[in-house]
Amino acid sequence: MNKQDLMETTLSTEPIFDGRIFSVRKDVVALPDGQESTREVVHHKSGGACVVPLTADGMVYIVRQCRYPYADVLLEIPAGKLDPGEAPEQCAARELKEECGVTAGKLTSLGTLYPTPAYVDEVIHMFLAEELSPAVQHLDDGEFLEVEKLPLETLVEQVLSGEVKDSKTQAALLKTWILKGRK
Amino acid sequence: MNKQDLMETTLSTEPIFDGRIFSVRKDVVALPDGQESTREVVHHKSGGACVVPLTADGMVYIVRQCRYPYADVLLEIPAGKLDPGEAPEQCAARELKEECGVTAGKLTSLGTLYPTPAYVDEVIHMFLAEELSPAVQHLDDGEFLEVEKLPLETLVEQVLSGEVKDSKTQAALLKTWILKGRK
Repeated sequence: MNKQDLMETTLSTEPIFDGRIFSVRKDVVALPDGQESTREVVHHKSGGACVVPLTADGMVYIVRQCRYPYADVLLEIPAGKLDPGEAPEQCAARELKEECGVTAGKLTSLGTLYPTPAYVDEVIHMFLAEELSPAVQHLDDGEFLEVEKLPLETLVEQVLSGEVKDSKTQAALLKTWILKGRK
Repeated sequence: MNKQDLMETTLSTEPIFDGRIFSVRKDVVALPDGQESTREVVHHKSGGACVVPLTADGMVYIVRQCRYPYADVLLEIPAGKLDPGEAPEQCAARELKEECGVTAGKLTSLGTLYPTPAYVDEVIHMFLAEELSPAVQHLDDGEFLEVEKLPLETLVEQVLSGEVKDSKTQAALLKTWILKGRK
């Protein structure tokens, strides 16, 4: 089957909400067979970047923070939204410094992640950070988080056991584990 | 630091949108230090389940479908929304049958996934399906997708190279790869 045989095309669009982080719209689309349907879309305004900060002795900096939608504190790799005009690797380096007080001598792409592609268009850029040096942590106003350093192996076990739930953290840690295990 | 020292509490909530797949609200919250802030939340109405259908000879059933928010066709493991009152494993089995025309003799949990926890509350349940038997594919009305069978190893390479972008597909395939590699 050809890609064009699966594509949906926009017939009309209705703006619903224009927020700080995302906007919402409702589109009428033509399905591949010409039938009409509706699509509710969450447009993420900036996209984001995240980073696995890996030390020479196999430790990873990780943060605990409240994720309000789940009313819970989650374990995640450092991450944040792209500033206007900011390249993904700049964002990853900035968030690493701000949240963990660490700079990286080497930043390697781990690809991109589409968190929930049925209704959200966010793109998250994933990186591996190595050759780490201490810097000054600088949290944003209103940002509360706790930084820990745990062995990569322990974190991979926590992903496999289901304890780590955040999607970018699961994907980026497992990628790091497989890529590093190959060398 | 104690978990309670990181939590945010709801002061007020404003409904914004009530859609088919999700609703949107805007809450005023108290931060851990008592300051006020706002949180835009996308509430996913059902949650979902996804499944890695793995054959005895190491092949995985995978689907290609249009993901309208990205205006692209993505490669993903079979997945869908939970019906009202449906258990996650029932949903995974149903979607596997409907989308791929396959039933599973054995279903193992691969944990849950929070796709983008800063502003979405969706919970995706991940499973590994084995001991597969042919059944009758039955797509929903308006559902267009293409089913393929590819070696798990090839798909893992496509996750590592960045070609597979969907978060649940990345996490579930890498988990399967690591767990199966251990045996």
